[in-house]
Amino acid sequence: MLTKTQHLFDDATRVSAGDSRWQGRTSEDYWAFVGPFGGATAATILRALIDHPQRSGEPLALTVNFCAPVAQGDFDLDVRLVKANRSTQHWAVEMTQGGGEVATLATAVFAERRPSWSHQRAEFPHAKPFEQTLPYAKVAATWVKQYDFRFVEGEPELGGAKKDAPASAFSKLWIGDRVPRKIDALSLVAISDAFFARIFHARRELVPFGTVSLTTYFHADTDDLAKEDITRVLGVADARIFHKSYGDQNGELWSPSGRLLATTTQIAYFKA
Amino acid sequence: MLTKTQHLFDDATRVSAGDSRWQGRTSEDYWAFVGPFGGATAATILRALIDHPQRSGEPLALTVNFCAPVAQGDFDLDVRLVKANRSTQHWAVEMTQGGGEVATLATAVFAERRPSWSHQRAEFPHAKPFEQTLPYAKVAATWVKQYDFRFVEGEPELGGAKKDAPASAFSKLWIGDRVPRKIDALSLVAISDAFFARIFHARRELVPFGTVSLTTYFHADTDDLAKEDITRVLGVADARIFHKSYGDQNGELWSPSGRLLATTTQIAYFKA
Repeated sequence: MLTKTQHLFDDATRVSAGDSRWQGRTSEDYWAFVGPFGGATAATILRALIDHPQRSGEPLALTVNFCAPVAQGDFDLDVRLVKANRSTQHWAVEMTQGGGEVATLATAVFAERRPSWSHQRAEFPHAKPFEQTLPYAKVAATWVKQYDFRFVEGEPELGGAKKDAPASAFSKLWIGDRVPRKIDALSLVAISDAFFARIFHARRELVPFGTVSLTTYFHADTDDLAKEDITRVLGVADARIFHKSYGDQNGELWSPSGRLLATTTQIAYFKA
Repeated sequence: MLTKTQHLFDDATRVSAGDSRWQGRTSEDYWAFVGPFGGATAATILRALIDHPQRSGEPLALTVNFCAPVAQGDFDLDVRLVKANRSTQHWAVEMTQGGGEVATLATAVFAERRPSWSHQRAEFPHAKPFEQTLPYAKVAATWVKQYDFRFVEGEPELGGAKKDAPASAFSKLWIGDRVPRKIDALSLVAISDAFFARIFHARRELVPFGTVSLTTYFHADTDDLAKEDITRVLGVADARIFHKSYGDQNGELWSPSGRLLATTTQIAYFKA
């Protein structure tokens, strides 16, 4: 039996050390409808990379392709450093279960974040403070309980009267771990998959849905995050199109002080 | 010696059939400063997948990680179907040269695009017609010659008087092959890397630059593209942040009729 670590999130994304092959186990605390919360899977993969003895530099980009539902229980992570030079590392990770079937395929780039010209072009999406925003009360899946969602704008109107025109797919909300935990690269990647499906917003109903591919870019390194010293982010997410069973999402994760920490995009299956 | 095929682009992105191992050769026609134009490399990888005998469905998502400059000459593509089910296929591709050194690492998702509820939420970025827009005259790299860029907004002011405030990183432009070629998934992925580096716009100067990771989502399938029957797209691109030697880019590719064909994002190294 595993000893519970300090935070459920760290327990849920725990991996045991290996060289090219790491082990982990899905967590019931971060369970979604047909498998673990994709953000927890992505964070587990990132954790194996960050903890890897050959890793150097900061996480820069992570793409996770969800190939099949991850079954409850043990999994292996096949972690491979594909290419490295002085300033960047390129990794490939395959999450496999029972007999080597691939459930998740990921690539990641780590990089030395050297000082440079700096310019934040995107504008901070101003919002009323976290403390003045009501928590989202409806919880459908276990993993949702692990977060504190506070919608500033675009709370989903699920189950409302069906209207002809699609609703907005835009949301602005505070997101933090329910039990506060300092925001790091692991929580940023998990939170980048924590926006509710845009199709739920646009259709005002829950429909069969699954993220197919998720990409997150990190715009703050360990030092930047240490300076922010925060336990929640302001997230904005929107969709551009829903067409022939697939829809997109793009999102930004901001520190309360107005710093852009990460950007994320995904393409997802839906049935509607 | 290769026989020239109908269009330089098709020649530049040509691959010879294999099972798991395909061969290709870089093209001088699509050369950038230290290697082939990344869009040509991405399109070459996508072509190998589309032409693969085991491929089924439409390209949905492609992520290309540029691990090292591709040297002039021959390369191998190691193409692997990682996971498939009734409606999706997950692929991994490694481009290697001389002795198996990996230059490019890619993942792709193919999917059956079944009819569904459809909703284009993003608004068409209206622009004056292609015919009324002047071609971009300055050409720095060979690959740029292969395209007809017509800036509606945000033409880069390179080499202009250095101003204190960063310039806008937003561009809106018509992009088509210089020798017209029907827009297909291959040209969409190439064009998704054809925007000039956002840092050139923001800094008003050329600086050392390289795309590290590129992700493109396809929102139109073969039938949709056949209906459009176009040889150019309206592209918009912007950046959200430049920080510690890396900056992002996000873009949209539209048909002249107002249909969103593809969305793209990338993270890139710069020295400034």
